[in-house]
Amino acid sequence: MSERPELKPYIHDISVQMEQQLQSFLPAGWDVPKTLTDSMLYSLMAGGKRLRPVFVIAAAEALGGSREAALPVACAIEMVHTYSLVHDDLPAMDDDDYRRGKLTNHKVYGEAMAILAGDALLTHAFYAATGCTAFGVAPEAALAIVRDLAEYAGPRGMVGGQVADMEGEQGMTELEQLRYIHLHKTADLFMFSLTAGARTAGATEQQLDALRRFGSDIGLAFQIQDDILDVIGDEAKLGKKTQSDSKLQKVTYPYFIGLEASKQEVERLTASAKAALQEANLKDSRRLEEIADYLVQRDH
Amino acid sequence: MSERPELKPYIHDISVQMEQQLQSFLPAGWDVPKTLTDSMLYSLMAGGKRLRPVFVIAAAEALGGSREAALPVACAIEMVHTYSLVHDDLPAMDDDDYRRGKLTNHKVYGEAMAILAGDALLTHAFYAATGCTAFGVAPEAALAIVRDLAEYAGPRGMVGGQVADMEGEQGMTELEQLRYIHLHKTADLFMFSLTAGARTAGATEQQLDALRRFGSDIGLAFQIQDDILDVIGDEAKLGKKTQSDSKLQKVTYPYFIGLEASKQEVERLTASAKAALQEANLKDSRRLEEIADYLVQRDH
Repeated sequence: MSERPELKPYIHDISVQMEQQLQSFLPAGWDVPKTLTDSMLYSLMAGGKRLRPVFVIAAAEALGGSREAALPVACAIEMVHTYSLVHDDLPAMDDDDYRRGKLTNHKVYGEAMAILAGDALLTHAFYAATGCTAFGVAPEAALAIVRDLAEYAGPRGMVGGQVADMEGEQGMTELEQLRYIHLHKTADLFMFSLTAGARTAGATEQQLDALRRFGSDIGLAFQIQDDILDVIGDEAKLGKKTQSDSKLQKVTYPYFIGLEASKQEVERLTASAKAALQEANLKDSRRLEEIADYLVQRDH
Repeated sequence: MSERPELKPYIHDISVQMEQQLQSFLPAGWDVPKTLTDSMLYSLMAGGKRLRPVFVIAAAEALGGSREAALPVACAIEMVHTYSLVHDDLPAMDDDDYRRGKLTNHKVYGEAMAILAGDALLTHAFYAATGCTAFGVAPEAALAIVRDLAEYAGPRGMVGGQVADMEGEQGMTELEQLRYIHLHKTADLFMFSLTAGARTAGATEQQLDALRRFGSDIGLAFQIQDDILDVIGDEAKLGKKTQSDSKLQKVTYPYFIGLEASKQEVERLTASAKAALQEANLKDSRRLEEIADYLVQRDH
């Protein structure tokens, strides 16, 4: 097998390519009101970790596919993720003034523009996704990617998770409810990213199924790890006030089953994810495994 | 040529089929928070005229295509149209309490849910659109429909029009600005509906191009007619306070070029639209012509 660079430069490279590609999806010469493009780019370029794009590209490359064909899909999922943050921060939702140390979209552009910029990002994501056919992806595969994006990001996916989360703030009594929220708010976009990347590289149904299980387990583990960090995390490292969720009466995994059992659940899910990855029978699954370790071992 | 029923029963039939189909896209057994489905259906079933779906189906049938294959696309555009109304009515946008005599979505379900229901409708529209492949539409054609939907509804289309409209409320000095708003807020979804319906029936590029011109002209004529009715309309017939736009300092076509010239522009555009329709070389273009007449001759 070929030599692989370390994970950090790998992620950095993808980030750089993503920023170029995202910019090219909103070209300067566009006949679009400038404030709208500015507002879309403001949040797209706000320094996200590009986690979902990394999954798209790593999955494509694990099957021997090209990064070029995966990049439009990587942009699509980043647009969807970004729109969800812009709408989530709105006064009617979480009412946040800052995200990643920068003013939120509506604090800069106003509420109406933030709503419309979110709508535009979500819609444009589907345009971006179809762009993969220019790099040899079959129309059938591109169409499956579009359908999956709508499913995993829509009412049965991420938006459903958001609604459950909102309703959960009025009181949650079952761990199952929290699991539903974590799965749909977080794991669904992971599952999309992995399978969509794999689809650009011609994955089989069996590979897609294994990657779905990998994404579901890692997504849930990632979110439980987030809950754990929220409880034990160090304020400075986390960059936001810890225990803010419990202050707002928001429940976490440790709240239901305790800190130790939560840590064990992260380990169990990580092992289960890795087992699924083996069953995917990829050309080279080591990078995806590394990313999984990185996500669940992080301390911020 | 076969006998055609009158226009009104034709539109009524489509409305009935649409309501069944829309409901089937949000089935009762769905694993989705009930409030979300309720809120989506509340606005979807609020008694719209189903104008865009009628265009989708009439275009498909004008080419000899099946209504079955066009219906999923008709549902998609109705979901997009509905989401745009839900977000448009929000307090941060137009702040409307009523639409078509019913409370607006956020007055019933709250602002946060209205934002999320709109997001869910927009996302689910792309899922619905892909459904046409189950009725024999080729993946290439379905993918083109998805890409067009993203273009016509996105930043370069409807959302761009919304932003321009919002910015225009702070003062508009050029007719060109108003034309941009009308074209993107209204004509773009007409153009999508006509070409997407035609694509489900295997339209040629030349036919698509002619239908685009038809949609653009009729969309603009429809919107200028709206401006005219807003000035001369009868309060009871229109169902909303007339001249509300001018009261809010919103400018209309008559404001720029006067009532007579506006009426002439509607006539000119209608004639131009009909000429485009002839160039489309359809199996039977009479229904589309009828709909065009109905739209620009309406008095409410």
